[in-house]
Amino acid sequence: MTGRDAPPGIDLNSDLGESFGRWQLGDDDAMLTLVSSANVACGFHAGDPGVMRRTCELAAERGVAVGAHVAYRDLAGFGRRFIDIAPQELTDDVLYQLGALDACARAAGTRVRYIKPHGALYNAIVHHDQQAAAVVEAVLRYNPQLPALGLPSSAWLRHADKAGLPIAHEAFADRAYTPEGTLVPRTEPGAVLHDPAEIAERCLAIALGAGVSAIDGSQVPLRADSLCVHGDSPGAVEIARAVAERLRGAAVPIRTFVA
Amino acid sequence: MTGRDAPPGIDLNSDLGESFGRWQLGDDDAMLTLVSSANVACGFHAGDPGVMRRTCELAAERGVAVGAHVAYRDLAGFGRRFIDIAPQELTDDVLYQLGALDACARAAGTRVRYIKPHGALYNAIVHHDQQAAAVVEAVLRYNPQLPALGLPSSAWLRHADKAGLPIAHEAFADRAYTPEGTLVPRTEPGAVLHDPAEIAERCLAIALGAGVSAIDGSQVPLRADSLCVHGDSPGAVEIARAVAERLRGAAVPIRTFVA
Amino acid sequence: MTGRDAPPGIDLNSDLGESFGRWQLGDDDAMLTLVSSANVACGFHAGDPGVMRRTCELAAERGVAVGAHVAYRDLAGFGRRFIDIAPQELTDDVLYQLGALDACARAAGTRVRYIKPHGALYNAIVHHDQQAAAVVEAVLRYNPQLPALGLPSSAWLRHADKAGLPIAHEAFADRAYTPEGTLVPRTEPGAVLHDPAEIAERCLAIALGAGVSAIDGSQVPLRADSLCVHGDSPGAVEIARAVAERLRGAAVPIRTFVA
Amino acid sequence: MTGRDAPPGIDLNSDLGESFGRWQLGDDDAMLTLVSSANVACGFHAGDPGVMRRTCELAAERGVAVGAHVAYRDLAGFGRRFIDIAPQELTDDVLYQLGALDACARAAGTRVRYIKPHGALYNAIVHHDQQAAAVVEAVLRYNPQLPALGLPSSAWLRHADKAGLPIAHEAFADRAYTPEGTLVPRTEPGAVLHDPAEIAERCLAIALGAGVSAIDGSQVPLRADSLCVHGDSPGAVEIARAVAERLRGAAVPIRTFVA
Repeated sequence: MTGRDAPPGIDLNSDLGESFGRWQLGDDDAMLTLVSSANVACGFHAGDPGVMRRTCELAAERGVAVGAHVAYRDLAGFGRRFIDIAPQELTDDVLYQLGALDACARAAGTRVRYIKPHGALYNAIVHHDQQAAAVVEAVLRYNPQLPALGLPSSAWLRHADKAGLPIAHEAFADRAYTPEGTLVPRTEPGAVLHDPAEIAERCLAIALGAGVSAIDGSQVPLRADSLCVHGDSPGAVEIARAVAERLRGAAVPIRTFVA
Repeated sequence: MTGRDAPPGIDLNSDLGESFGRWQLGDDDAMLTLVSSANVACGFHAGDPGVMRRTCELAAERGVAVGAHVAYRDLAGFGRRFIDIAPQELTDDVLYQLGALDACARAAGTRVRYIKPHGALYNAIVHHDQQAAAVVEAVLRYNPQLPALGLPSSAWLRHADKAGLPIAHEAFADRAYTPEGTLVPRTEPGAVLHDPAEIAERCLAIALGAGVSAIDGSQVPLRADSLCVHGDSPGAVEIARAVAERLRGAAVPIRTFVA
Repeated sequence: MTGRDAPPGIDLNSDLGESFGRWQLGDDDAMLTLVSSANVACGFHAGDPGVMRRTCELAAERGVAVGAHVAYRDLAGFGRRFIDIAPQELTDDVLYQLGALDACARAAGTRVRYIKPHGALYNAIVHHDQQAAAVVEAVLRYNPQLPALGLPSSAWLRHADKAGLPIAHEAFADRAYTPEGTLVPRTEPGAVLHDPAEIAERCLAIALGAGVSAIDGSQVPLRADSLCVHGDSPGAVEIARAVAERLRGAAVPIRTFVA
Repeated sequence: MTGRDAPPGIDLNSDLGESFGRWQLGDDDAMLTLVSSANVACGFHAGDPGVMRRTCELAAERGVAVGAHVAYRDLAGFGRRFIDIAPQELTDDVLYQLGALDACARAAGTRVRYIKPHGALYNAIVHHDQQAAAVVEAVLRYNPQLPALGLPSSAWLRHADKAGLPIAHEAFADRAYTPEGTLVPRTEPGAVLHDPAEIAERCLAIALGAGVSAIDGSQVPLRADSLCVHGDSPGAVEIARAVAERLRGAAVPIRTFVA
């Protein structure tokens, strides 16, 4: 999936389906006209079954790939708090979420086509070997053809790759990078970019394989199969639209990374 | 499934996988040596993902069919309280549970092979047309080959049948019947039987097509594809064992009703 | 509380603190400058502990009375689905919510000063005697001085009154009334009013004891200790502001109904 | 509370009220005839409102002090998994639980008389300064007279003491100690004692101020205001009974540590 024979173009992914019951979050309708992959919440950090089914339906209508945005079981914390869960329990929790979303996807005429962990779990399995392996184990047991989307050089993709899962690298449209190609921590100044034009320009550079300029001005090689654009921050739709238009303007197709 | 060309024998089904987290309920290990169908809780009234996966594994090992024991979202009430949920929301909740359990079943090398609603939902859809149709709709959207198990003459089976789902009738091993062939309400004296030998004898009669003697002593014709034996009451295992032994003693095979 | 010796003025109450975790709902900050009583969600249908504590702090700062907006345990349904819960369980659930909110109120330098059930529970106990009595029982066991706010002629206020709780009547700012003084069901045309000026005028009439014009044009006597203004619908703040300004313009003080 | 002028005798505390909905855990009825302090679950890791109210009633009847057994919000994990929750959120969660249990206690004619964190939270705040301070903050805001029960030399008691809360030290009846007076980790052989007579003898020694023999045979001085006896393990009641009988046999009163 990350090889040189990939078709031209780039994937845009976004976290969607994050409403729950009475509570609305994000503008999924707008985002689903812009992205090619939807990371759909599976009920553990957000997303009730109705939200999940409707998000899958909208994604299917628009030709957007549905991905499982699996998370710790933590509605009150929106999956943003690390939980020191035993690997076997994490495997089972992920399996449950995969199946639940896949049922919604089937009802919408599509299927879950990749997996991308959410929030604190995403961050944990950059380094946490046991939890990374536990998520991989769930995918293997559910569907060993399901691609894993994540941060290059994360434990998550390393374990997924070793286990034979297809893997895909993502880069962040609105985040600054260090000269080493890692994300500048959110706590540091300049870590998050806000200017839609600048973000769009960086996305184009990444899509064309030109890498990205790091926070110190140096140029970093950065290959990505997918660009993550946020769906729930203020200005999210505007940024996503700028990115999509810049890519289209440069004749770079926006298309799912899934084979 | 209820036709005259069914193979000889009868199914025994039981509600299993009803533990949750730290809490144990029932003796699944023993019950899974006796029954041929396991109604496995899907996380909404009982059953965490680990319990679900382990129950499916044990069922698969023993050749017991896994059924989805779907319920209202009500852990605190164990799914025993009627909830006036909108039909579309109920459809989505059932879809979610079907998928979640099916993922656990797949991980255990099997699949969900039928559906039987639990508790207050089971009772509601004996008469509640909209909720009955909503559960049927979920099954149709998930897998229109999945058999529906339930009470003869319930709205649930009537809607399922009309929609083209395979249906299967169940009778209750330990419940008294009216002369009309319906269950004597639990609130009435004599509604629940406790003597294992008597229960076993009634089960054999039902399995042989001889019907059942009603609470007034009259004989009621009663056909059943499956006999429900309870898994979590005191003496449950003893009763299930008496039933299983009586059937085997009469050379009536215990085998799943699923084709 | 509903006697003729009540001080001049009228209470405005609104459902607030309905955010949860990552999800925001309503503009509590604006509403808390307009109303005199805040019905604060207690965690069962909305409101996490942080939202509860902050809402109580803001209410305390602004001199707004904190009321317990108790509900069925149903986050996914926002407490809007009837649950056929046993009376004793409902009593315990309400007790729990009262204490939880009171702790948040204490931490904010105030206390829970009244109780108003939410959503489906509010609707159920207009007629459902057992559930109405169960809620009253919880209040009695927690604090028999706590006033009950609700619909005149509801089972809820009838039971509360009989048990010796102070009671307070509420009217709805934006709802049409029948000639008999009951609410026109939401399913009927004209049931909900939208024009801020009209709503404000009706509120003033009620506050002055002039009653309200019913949907057929007849005049209905209607006494109220409190007017409910919604906090989370589109235009909610605008309507509440129009009501508050109209009352102030007519020199009718907006003040809590709590003694 | 830990001074030399404490009355003679020792407190026995146990984790109780850990059932939830359909699920029973432990033999609270038996344990409440043996202990003098009940750590009652508050709904976040166990304990629904009905269980909480009934446990408080039974404790009140038997003259047993009710303590708040506050925990992370984690029913599925029984509060046994560390959660990296922000301190302010933890303060609010603890406040909520304190109030909820106190309401149940009031309905039972008593009050919450101390606080002892549960499970992973208990373990975390032995060392985790921010979480320890957050729990203390909740107690201060709720009731600055409420005693804190915990492990000597824990961050929890250090922060509580500094903040002016009464503190009480507990020792574990069935755990081995290192020569330094800390608990031998559960993962090491011999960490947990099982012989009721031996456990009872150690408890008597601690109660008499004679300290405890460490795992290497050396004698460790160990002062405790309370001895924790487990309520839900196999043999729990038998051990608690042996301890209670040994103490009574030596004329050491079993009485709450609360002033």
